[in-house]
Amino acid sequence: MPRTIVESRSRTAVIGFDEPFCVIGERINPTGRKMLATELEAGIFSTVESDALEQVSCGATMLDVNAGVVYNSNPDPNQTEPPLMRKLIKLVQSVVDVPLCIDSSVPAALEAGLEQCEGRPLVNSVTGEEERLETILPLVKKYNVPVVAISNDDTGISEDPDVRFAVARKIVERAADHGIAVHDVVVDPLVMPVGAMATAGNQVFSLVRRLREELDANTTCGASNISFGLPNRHGINSAFLAMAICSGMTSAIMNPTRPQEMEAVRAANFLTNNDRHGSEWIKNYRPPQERSASELPIRERRRRRAR
Amino acid sequence: MPRTIVESRSRTAVIGFDEPFCVIGERINPTGRKMLATELEAGIFSTVESDALEQVSCGATMLDVNAGVVYNSNPDPNQTEPPLMRKLIKLVQSVVDVPLCIDSSVPAALEAGLEQCEGRPLVNSVTGEEERLETILPLVKKYNVPVVAISNDDTGISEDPDVRFAVARKIVERAADHGIAVHDVVVDPLVMPVGAMATAGNQVFSLVRRLREELDANTTCGASNISFGLPNRHGINSAFLAMAICSGMTSAIMNPTRPQEMEAVRAANFLTNNDRHGSEWIKNYRPPQERSASELPIRERRRRRAR
Repeated sequence: MPRTIVESRSRTAVIGFDEPFCVIGERINPTGRKMLATELEAGIFSTVESDALEQVSCGATMLDVNAGVVYNSNPDPNQTEPPLMRKLIKLVQSVVDVPLCIDSSVPAALEAGLEQCEGRPLVNSVTGEEERLETILPLVKKYNVPVVAISNDDTGISEDPDVRFAVARKIVERAADHGIAVHDVVVDPLVMPVGAMATAGNQVFSLVRRLREELDANTTCGASNISFGLPNRHGINSAFLAMAICSGMTSAIMNPTRPQEMEAVRAANFLTNNDRHGSEWIKNYRPPQERSASELPIRERRRRRAR
Repeated sequence: MPRTIVESRSRTAVIGFDEPFCVIGERINPTGRKMLATELEAGIFSTVESDALEQVSCGATMLDVNAGVVYNSNPDPNQTEPPLMRKLIKLVQSVVDVPLCIDSSVPAALEAGLEQCEGRPLVNSVTGEEERLETILPLVKKYNVPVVAISNDDTGISEDPDVRFAVARKIVERAADHGIAVHDVVVDPLVMPVGAMATAGNQVFSLVRRLREELDANTTCGASNISFGLPNRHGINSAFLAMAICSGMTSAIMNPTRPQEMEAVRAANFLTNNDRHGSEWIKNYRPPQERSASELPIRERRRRRAR
């Protein structure tokens, strides 16, 4: 069974078949967050700080850090992303102590992040594209870290799950050529929106099962993609997460501040016997009147004291 | 692929691998409902009527009808259940037109229900106990109806899933001896509370997969058993339903008036490609301002008219 080890300064998390699902917080990412992008260009980092704290307090196992902002003053990400990535990682590691996932399509930003980051981060990502394979894998080997492998290649993203499986296999094999073990490759089978592709859910569930059974690989995905364009996205995301975990998925890049999604993940951990004695479930969902003061959220503690 | 056909006077529902999950409404059952039991003994049927209407309006595919009340005036269910079952079925079929599931441990009540019921009901249930097999299966054959097969036998309920699978196989084989095809046997693999048995979830998921792959059988269960004794039961039930559907479960006896559980079922239908074009999802979860008046719940229609 693969055990992918990720570490912060003082904490270790394991991604694995018999571990609680690894929740990788997605919020520190300026893509599609115009306000955050503007703040980052202006050198304002308060949102990053509060996003880091909030995601960890909501139950994130790891945090994704993405510096993919296009500055108005300088549109070249090769110049702007590496120093911003350093800054973000330094800041995040100064406020929370969870392992990080360094997320960029700019190799120099990944390397800057790897230099900066304490512990053993996850690199996000390599694809099956030849140039990416030969740029990213040596970096992954040099820093001895695990990497997310996304199942697209030079021909793009295939709608055929067999092709995506073949791309994943190719990346795992190429990683081995570079001396990187399969337990350090976390495969993203790619999640399509179910509103656009009717088989999107079934594809992920069967791919995850194959990746687990045939490649013995841990898996991840951008979970909220599944509900793109649909009403009541949290309802779809929650069921999708439970079903993906039931199929063997071991991590996801997702929003841990959404209670419904986190509830589904915690229930699925319990139901797959990865929350021993249901202790996490009971800690999170026991009625407040049955909890001791130290177990309560701060607001609730104050209210109780005021009585 | 098995197709279990159930019918009311004018409607047909199919339980099958490529059909929307069959939601069997559990509410018309006096077990554990003291008020309802008292009403039934006093000959008051208004709750049964409103439970039938509410469950169907919330999305139940079928309704379970259980007459298992112990009268204070007459403690012999062999005498009291058959006439009550007739009365309940007659009443339910007078207010709603969905297929029924006739639920009793008293064979005479099952037969009374079968005589009374219009259409093609599901019989709930037979077990692997010798006496039950030889009493219930001839009845099932005589009325040419499908039957729920519960995976316990004369030795009780085994905690070993392999034993439960073997009992299921025995029932399917015995049914065949009586001329009943496997598509008319809906297997209940038995759901234990996960709070008491850590492997309860995993057992169901793998049993459902085996029952589907090895016996080609439809499946059902009493879904809410999984969360017995735990806080936030709806959270566990919802994830459990999505995961069971992902494993191939095709029906459950459950409470359709619970929005969280129904949301999980509808999302799982969509994600397993059994809600074509997501039309059921969109019909149920599109924001009210985007709906036409006829699609709105009655209360919402009145509000709109009042504006």
